[in-house]
Amino acid sequence: MNDILTIGGKELTNRLFVGTGKFADHKEMGAAITESNSEVVTVALRRVDVESNEEDILHDIPKQVTLMPNTSGARTAEEAIRIARMAKAVGMGNWIKIEVISDHKYLLPDNEETTKATEVLAKEGFVVLPYMSPDLMAAKRMVDAGAAAIMPLGAPIGSNKGIRMKEMIQIMIDEIDLPIVVDAGIGKPSEAAEAMEMGADAVLVNTAIATATDPVQMAKAFDMAVKAGRIGYLSGLGPVSAKAHASSPLTGFLG
Amino acid sequence: MNDILTIGGKELTNRLFVGTGKFADHKEMGAAITESNSEVVTVALRRVDVESNEEDILHDIPKQVTLMPNTSGARTAEEAIRIARMAKAVGMGNWIKIEVISDHKYLLPDNEETTKATEVLAKEGFVVLPYMSPDLMAAKRMVDAGAAAIMPLGAPIGSNKGIRMKEMIQIMIDEIDLPIVVDAGIGKPSEAAEAMEMGADAVLVNTAIATATDPVQMAKAFDMAVKAGRIGYLSGLGPVSAKAHASSPLTGFLG
Amino acid sequence: MNDILTIGGKELTNRLFVGTGKFADHKEMGAAITESNSEVVTVALRRVDVESNEEDILHDIPKQVTLMPNTSGARTAEEAIRIARMAKAVGMGNWIKIEVISDHKYLLPDNEETTKATEVLAKEGFVVLPYMSPDLMAAKRMVDAGAAAIMPLGAPIGSNKGIRMKEMIQIMIDEIDLPIVVDAGIGKPSEAAEAMEMGADAVLVNTAIATATDPVQMAKAFDMAVKAGRIGYLSGLGPVSAKAHASSPLTGFLG
Amino acid sequence: MNDILTIGGKELTNRLFVGTGKFADHKEMGAAITESNSEVVTVALRRVDVESNEEDILHDIPKQVTLMPNTSGARTAEEAIRIARMAKAVGMGNWIKIEVISDHKYLLPDNEETTKATEVLAKEGFVVLPYMSPDLMAAKRMVDAGAAAIMPLGAPIGSNKGIRMKEMIQIMIDEIDLPIVVDAGIGKPSEAAEAMEMGADAVLVNTAIATATDPVQMAKAFDMAVKAGRIGYLSGLGPVSAKAHASSPLTGFLG
Repeated sequence: MNDILTIGGKELTNRLFVGTGKFADHKEMGAAITESNSEVVTVALRRVDVESNEEDILHDIPKQVTLMPNTSGARTAEEAIRIARMAKAVGMGNWIKIEVISDHKYLLPDNEETTKATEVLAKEGFVVLPYMSPDLMAAKRMVDAGAAAIMPLGAPIGSNKGIRMKEMIQIMIDEIDLPIVVDAGIGKPSEAAEAMEMGADAVLVNTAIATATDPVQMAKAFDMAVKAGRIGYLSGLGPVSAKAHASSPLTGFLG
Repeated sequence: MNDILTIGGKELTNRLFVGTGKFADHKEMGAAITESNSEVVTVALRRVDVESNEEDILHDIPKQVTLMPNTSGARTAEEAIRIARMAKAVGMGNWIKIEVISDHKYLLPDNEETTKATEVLAKEGFVVLPYMSPDLMAAKRMVDAGAAAIMPLGAPIGSNKGIRMKEMIQIMIDEIDLPIVVDAGIGKPSEAAEAMEMGADAVLVNTAIATATDPVQMAKAFDMAVKAGRIGYLSGLGPVSAKAHASSPLTGFLG
Repeated sequence: MNDILTIGGKELTNRLFVGTGKFADHKEMGAAITESNSEVVTVALRRVDVESNEEDILHDIPKQVTLMPNTSGARTAEEAIRIARMAKAVGMGNWIKIEVISDHKYLLPDNEETTKATEVLAKEGFVVLPYMSPDLMAAKRMVDAGAAAIMPLGAPIGSNKGIRMKEMIQIMIDEIDLPIVVDAGIGKPSEAAEAMEMGADAVLVNTAIATATDPVQMAKAFDMAVKAGRIGYLSGLGPVSAKAHASSPLTGFLG
Repeated sequence: MNDILTIGGKELTNRLFVGTGKFADHKEMGAAITESNSEVVTVALRRVDVESNEEDILHDIPKQVTLMPNTSGARTAEEAIRIARMAKAVGMGNWIKIEVISDHKYLLPDNEETTKATEVLAKEGFVVLPYMSPDLMAAKRMVDAGAAAIMPLGAPIGSNKGIRMKEMIQIMIDEIDLPIVVDAGIGKPSEAAEAMEMGADAVLVNTAIATATDPVQMAKAFDMAVKAGRIGYLSGLGPVSAKAHASSPLTGFLG
């Protein structure tokens, strides 16, 4: 199967994006990324040591991946824009995941500020992936603002609660023409598979991998689950029915 | 990882069991079984042509798998016992999945008759896998009757509804010392992964594969999903929390 | 609306049955029962002081209700039968809720022993209400054994988890001709309403009332919720649809 | 219990708001409103015949209720503002439910335009209740814009799907200081009770009542369910637990 996801001109064959936070150390993080087969890795610019000669966290991220720096820490569009420009200036490329968060309890993104930052940065040539609270109309605005993909949250970040906003995410998948990447909340491989079966184009997982007892093996589990869900989606899931249907004919056997 | 499931003295490395009903034809069935990597395949004895020289359905089942004939069509313990003996007599080995069903609408198994058949057949040396309506106390009786594994249904057979009886199946997984194989109802790869994450030892899938648009690719998806769920379970799933937890420190970045 | 539920020859107008355990004291229990408007109250025979002159717990149960002594503490059919006979002997009437439980962790009932006790006691003239693990075929056996109503659990007793066994309970409601009383697990008024909307004939609630901050007001809430759910069921719930449907015509207004 | 909900200076004792669309005729609508005991009724201005002497739909709405005209048909903030002013001009009072919808498939509201209309109308002295797609940050903006209450949708309007956006609505209930009125999607009395148990201040129901087989009785069921859920919330729901807890002591009875 030749199943390619294209974002910002890059052709991706793996639909699991991973994050770099919460790992015990950078070695473990690097090993988990490698095992995940992920081709897109997000990293908070503020966790990058941009001044020292040591390359800090970037040193342990496999070289072949596409870096997707994120604007974690930004509370407004303006702060997100500044962080994005800094990321590009220090050589992290032109992909940017916009995170604008001023809610300190549930860490929910601010769709309106996020759209503003998307518009400015898309015009500057960034490949912009806005992280957002699932909402069809906000997503449409982000499309108009020049986003390269839309990243709705499944549940509050780090909660491992699964895809609680399924109703709205399904509508977004059906109605938005850009790739939909389900981000935040996915806590188990089965939930990543479920997102793919719904027709999501990719998922981003961080906490569920980093806080597992064995993060490296868990990264592998997520890789397989995403592939399983994707193949399931492409292979045409059978219908759900209210009644039972025998696998074998029910005519008498022993008479 | 050396992760072996032992049932009836057989060491299995694949935890996806598959069924043989509802495929378009035997070729497609054989290809799907091969792609599933399954090591245990169930087939209704009544679908086997025990008299002709043509081997019928058995001809297209890969030779290396363990056949698990089932007693589909039996309405009582006595009928199930007779079918089991016939299956052994025609050379289908000594594994038997007991199905005793007299409800023609939801095709729900009769736990009491199933336990009776289990007891008789276990004493005759069969490796008995009873298909049952999830119920802890009934499962304990089947353990006492000599079952080799317990096969609770997730939802009515052929419904593709998923694991609707999760509450009781989780209790059975926690309390029963035999392997638990979730059978019936699993409609998507994500649901197979979920059963494995709950700690089930294996799943049996038929309708969801056979009624997919592309059964062979769907078989592959289920194989991967079962493996993903199992590795997820073994790797220690992270905790679910009510609140959000930042992947990156939330101290100010731009000041 | 003249909506009568008849069990054992008694005509009931209230479909909330309540239990008597876990209250702070007997006064609170009595006040909660009164506020619940319940006409059927279950009490464990072992909590009744059958020898002293003080009437113990029975003293605080409103006189007009039908007592439904239960066989709590019974581990076998035989013990349940003995307890039932004792309850009748001490003047608690001929209703009996059969509880046979030998599982000390989840307190799940033993359907097979419960059926045996049902058969013996029904023949002796008891109005028998077996508490059971939801299972269509076991319920059919209890019908054949002479039960007056069937009481499937929604979730493990005292868990307040809601109707987790919905799939099987719905099938039982559709297929069994006796009244179905959902017992155990109901933790919120909304869950009691939901059981009634599914078509259950009544619900039994104890823990959710007794462990509320204000048990007397909570008893009132459950009474109203059961009535709301019942009226909702009888009034014909509207269809659920995948798409939205405007409440008002969508032709332009301002042109 | 003296449990008052104050919105826009009005003290409400009933927490069920109802809509006026989809009824068979105005008589049935009026009877359902009466039976619902609702004190707040929403009506689309475009359904009001503002020019004829016949009072049209308003004629059959009980006189004592607070009318909450809505801006159904508005596709932008500007259109919503014009409709609101017209409603006031024709004597429908100063309450206004803002609906700004340009999505014709799922009829999902546009939070950004809704906030703009809220701001303008609140400054003009309207009591503004914005209908919105659940999103904490958008709700905070509506608070800042002068809303009197926030009305998040539970599911797409008219779908009867229940509270699918529970995760975000619960966060809004916990974090927003204005009354939260769950609007759209509630299809059953139990779902209305559930919203109240979550801590919502009120619910708005239209389709579920109007499309019931017996809308008048269904209105009554919703009234009772809302009260049941509210009392349940105020009475302190007991804790949910993973394990079972016996209602009666489990020490041996028969020894």
